[in-house]
Amino acid sequence: MTKELHGKKVTVHFNPDNVDVVVAKGDNLLQAAIAAGIRLHASCGGAGTCGTCKVVIEKGEVETIRTARISDSEYARGVRQACQTRILTDLTLKIPAESRIERAIVAREGKNVSAALATGWRFKPPFTKYYVELPPPTLTDNASDLSRLLRGLKQQHGLRNLGVDVEILKTLPKILRSSKWKVTVSIVTTAARDISRDWRRLLVFNVEPGDTRERHYSLAFDIGTTTVCGQLLDLNQGKIIAESIEFNGQIPYGQDVITRITQAEKPGGLKKLQNAVVATVNKVIDNLLAESKVKRKDIGHIMLAGNTTMTQIILGIDPRYLRRAPYTPAANFFPPREARALAIRVRKGVLMFAAPAVSSYVGGDIVSGVVGTGVYQRDKLIFSLDIGTNGEIVIGNSEWLVTASCSAGPAFEGGGIRHGIVATDGAIEDFDIDNKTYEPKIGVIGKSKPKGICGSGLINTIARLLEADVITQNGKFHHSLPTKRVRPGEDGYEYVLAWAPETQIGRDIVITEIDIENLIRAKAAMYAGCQTLSKSAGVSCAAFDQVIIAGAFGSHLNIRSAITIGLLPELPEDRFIFVGNGSLLGARLVSFSTDLLDDTRRIAAMMTNIELSDSADFMDAYTAAMFLPHTHAEVFPEVTRRLSQRQKNIKQ
Amino acid sequence: MTKELHGKKVTVHFNPDNVDVVVAKGDNLLQAAIAAGIRLHASCGGAGTCGTCKVVIEKGEVETIRTARISDSEYARGVRQACQTRILTDLTLKIPAESRIERAIVAREGKNVSAALATGWRFKPPFTKYYVELPPPTLTDNASDLSRLLRGLKQQHGLRNLGVDVEILKTLPKILRSSKWKVTVSIVTTAARDISRDWRRLLVFNVEPGDTRERHYSLAFDIGTTTVCGQLLDLNQGKIIAESIEFNGQIPYGQDVITRITQAEKPGGLKKLQNAVVATVNKVIDNLLAESKVKRKDIGHIMLAGNTTMTQIILGIDPRYLRRAPYTPAANFFPPREARALAIRVRKGVLMFAAPAVSSYVGGDIVSGVVGTGVYQRDKLIFSLDIGTNGEIVIGNSEWLVTASCSAGPAFEGGGIRHGIVATDGAIEDFDIDNKTYEPKIGVIGKSKPKGICGSGLINTIARLLEADVITQNGKFHHSLPTKRVRPGEDGYEYVLAWAPETQIGRDIVITEIDIENLIRAKAAMYAGCQTLSKSAGVSCAAFDQVIIAGAFGSHLNIRSAITIGLLPELPEDRFIFVGNGSLLGARLVSFSTDLLDDTRRIAAMMTNIELSDSADFMDAYTAAMFLPHTHAEVFPEVTRRLSQRQKNIKQ
Repeated sequence: MTKELHGKKVTVHFNPDNVDVVVAKGDNLLQAAIAAGIRLHASCGGAGTCGTCKVVIEKGEVETIRTARISDSEYARGVRQACQTRILTDLTLKIPAESRIERAIVAREGKNVSAALATGWRFKPPFTKYYVELPPPTLTDNASDLSRLLRGLKQQHGLRNLGVDVEILKTLPKILRSSKWKVTVSIVTTAARDISRDWRRLLVFNVEPGDTRERHYSLAFDIGTTTVCGQLLDLNQGKIIAESIEFNGQIPYGQDVITRITQAEKPGGLKKLQNAVVATVNKVIDNLLAESKVKRKDIGHIMLAGNTTMTQIILGIDPRYLRRAPYTPAANFFPPREARALAIRVRKGVLMFAAPAVSSYVGGDIVSGVVGTGVYQRDKLIFSLDIGTNGEIVIGNSEWLVTASCSAGPAFEGGGIRHGIVATDGAIEDFDIDNKTYEPKIGVIGKSKPKGICGSGLINTIARLLEADVITQNGKFHHSLPTKRVRPGEDGYEYVLAWAPETQIGRDIVITEIDIENLIRAKAAMYAGCQTLSKSAGVSCAAFDQVIIAGAFGSHLNIRSAITIGLLPELPEDRFIFVGNGSLLGARLVSFSTDLLDDTRRIAAMMTNIELSDSADFMDAYTAAMFLPHTHAEVFPEVTRRLSQRQKNIKQ
Repeated sequence: MTKELHGKKVTVHFNPDNVDVVVAKGDNLLQAAIAAGIRLHASCGGAGTCGTCKVVIEKGEVETIRTARISDSEYARGVRQACQTRILTDLTLKIPAESRIERAIVAREGKNVSAALATGWRFKPPFTKYYVELPPPTLTDNASDLSRLLRGLKQQHGLRNLGVDVEILKTLPKILRSSKWKVTVSIVTTAARDISRDWRRLLVFNVEPGDTRERHYSLAFDIGTTTVCGQLLDLNQGKIIAESIEFNGQIPYGQDVITRITQAEKPGGLKKLQNAVVATVNKVIDNLLAESKVKRKDIGHIMLAGNTTMTQIILGIDPRYLRRAPYTPAANFFPPREARALAIRVRKGVLMFAAPAVSSYVGGDIVSGVVGTGVYQRDKLIFSLDIGTNGEIVIGNSEWLVTASCSAGPAFEGGGIRHGIVATDGAIEDFDIDNKTYEPKIGVIGKSKPKGICGSGLINTIARLLEADVITQNGKFHHSLPTKRVRPGEDGYEYVLAWAPETQIGRDIVITEIDIENLIRAKAAMYAGCQTLSKSAGVSCAAFDQVIIAGAFGSHLNIRSAITIGLLPELPEDRFIFVGNGSLLGARLVSFSTDLLDDTRRIAAMMTNIELSDSADFMDAYTAAMFLPHTHAEVFPEVTRRLSQRQKNIKQ
């Protein structure tokens, strides 16, 4: 396979993919890899700071800027950061396993999801199909085709005041006649801007010959910064008939929303990012169609939930002001958009709806999660959190809802961690340690040799290292333990999780003090967000009747470990419920129920957003949380008791 | 200039244009001329029956089908019908003046238009601009940009429940900030389907930095089968600031709507016809902008009126069922369409509105005319007719309105007439005859040598030939008159209007018995339509308080002549009012007043359409009207008296 770019040409050959790309001499190597369809990590968006886009130059010459991310031995072996490298001659490269983005495991839904679902809604999808049989026109009744159709819909189904997509008129005359005046009409519920007044509008967007009611499908999407998850829904049966997940094609442009926004601000950047995520959406649709054997033309509705940045980018709306004080999104309520106009491959006229946003950092994904999990319907006090690159928190019940977003950074998804990877095959997820020998016992996703460690693995590892007194409550290693596993490294002390021969990558997999510090920062941000928000709402963390955990972790997060490191508040374990991808859950339920679509709009308008980025309370809480589990031992009494007990045991 | 087509190539050179086109050997010559941008008449749409696309082959070989339209002497001179000719070698051609479509003279508005205008409407254009100054966002008020804008519009202008074109969000954040939160918002009134209920919807479709209210323009169009007339309107002043007319680029595909529909049914035909009329619309827009110095981006609204066929074609809607019983249009109310999506060159987001239609042959042009002339507001009984290829008739007042359409054929616009041309420079428009010598006195548009005769010229000529007893009341020439002007010709007897040396075309310009027969058919269809419609409404033609005449004739129609031949009912001349292009008049007034936009919808729904094509009454009336002025002399007592008087005078 050869793809052409531009200018004076050199060829870059990628192994083990056996792919060539022809680029101009002087081109950037990361860009060349993107052009060749090779997906590399690039957490920092090509700034050179994360060191995740390493490649090995096997043949040919490059010009490179060496950063601290490349060790002497790596440099000697030809390892370079793709983003820092310009191509001078024909090249042959090898892509190491850990640099490559592979398909993540599907985030399984939590075990007790049914305990945390919106209730009381009627099954009435916003996309509906109506079958009508019309009297053929005669000389005494030669009303227009459209008038006849609308008259039939009124008489046979009581539908009035329908809007009509003018595009259907192009084929309507032929379809009515070829079908002998028996057709199925697709109608979608759209909304006026003003939620207080008669907001539902019905739009006729498709007419098909014959009775096609049995083929009635829609798509629900969660557009995450890291992954795009899609479900194909059967709207007759109200169930998921296929599910697929792909990495967001924007990852090579940066791992978090801030980097993405920065990229979007460059000339042509927004278009590139939009194309990248649309390509991913199209890939997910292809997967869903292949899996289900459903035909593309039978999809009639797309409901999408995403954070505000993702939503604006996919709609082609400049996101630059999202990251600048005072952090204003372009809109809270995004009018629906014809999906085809965004290059999403579905039939003409199908509208894409985006869940409304509360603010720049509390997006449609959160609103969708609140609706899906029914937080807004509960009498009990609910604490709901979505753990990801952006941590989003909602506290409240049927009376009130407050929300905040805190920038946790990519650590929970393996970003910014020396051997951090997403929860793919080869990721260390479970960890235990022998209290005497300090030898580890690791569990790897897919039961293969490890190639890195994922977010939930990190939490488990740090919790156990703390309990085994291998690290201090500051997150620093004890230096004098009788084990080779703890040793000085480039980033301070480190613990060897797996020796090189036991791994897929041929190098020791370690957890470093920098990694621990990054994770402490991330958990401190989440916990401080929770505290600040609780305080502003006048409640205490101890008062939560239920904690709903959403996010990429799914049910893989070990509650006990998360409490041990001070990520989650110390509450009885039976108060925690995992819902997996709450955003996708909400998008699905809204696809099933126009009642919930109403609720989505109502909730986005009623949620109070607390801006943490400039809050002094938050900074205080954050500083206090930069300790394992917390500077104020009294908020984690049981963990504190356990840690002091364990230390006593070990010392005996 | 050389344009490439396809296949094995030959070059066709057109004179006097000095244009080359490269086409494939075997290609049709009419198609080659269209490709070269040469506009030829082709009334019959390339069927070979009208003989209006004649060209002269000066060099090269062709294969042609000779029809009766080519005389022996023409054939010897190399005259061929382009539509019947295939190209075999490189060619050099000459296009005769009479085959060429030239720009028509602008249809001047009638003299007494103000006596026939809609009244009682408020000046309130459906396209409005609002200036707002918004408070910039702060950390305590960081509502989204769109929410802020809508809040401003509500607080400062009382606007609620606004719809928003999602496209504006792409630039909104930047525009708000670059303009320091002072912007002008363009809002258009659209309509829900159901006219009975809250139909007005307001849509935000553009936001501009600063205060741009002084630049507030829209376009009104009449899309006729023959001509496209456009006006550029200043919506601040409520006046026309430029006017332009071009031949409809579809003319080479046929002269009447039936031929156009037939062409549209061919593979790719609809797209070609749509492109042709859109190109004409764009040309008219270019003319208007050039004339007025208004900038394209400052146009914010397009209101269009056209017959149902033209409306469906410009919207890309298959028109084939319009010409098949029971004659059903695709829609009566056409939802608005983004003009850019139809390739009309205006700014993004500008909507094009089409006047609603009553039926296949009573289109938005008639509805628009009824609104513009206020027929629906009068207490008096009004007879309104639009004389064109399709004659459209409306009878009624503020209580009731009935309408019908009759296929008059192209004779009124010079079609199907041996030397018939549209009302361009060189067209014979006035005619008188010396009762003794039978020598003519002709008046030519543009005061040049004649090249043909236009519709109003034909009516005058036939009326005078009748009065001078040169023709009988059957439309046949008296053979024994003492003049060389009356002579036998190819199509029966004929009268020479101008000898070859006095013309632009170098041949005698004549009026033949076939021409007269065609005009009698056309006038009979119009008059029979009027009679049938009057009868169905239970009124007599003599009861009309006012006759409003619209159409291409403008005020050029001589009322006396039209009554003499039996086209118009015999009524006192002061009851007749010319309004010129009534359809364009209505489109303009609707652009000025949302009240009239309401009325347009109401009237389209209330008008009763009488289908004449299968009516026995109509056929009887038509047969009776195939006489000059009419078989039943009692309906034209004054004309009958005058004719018998004149004949007596002549004989004395």
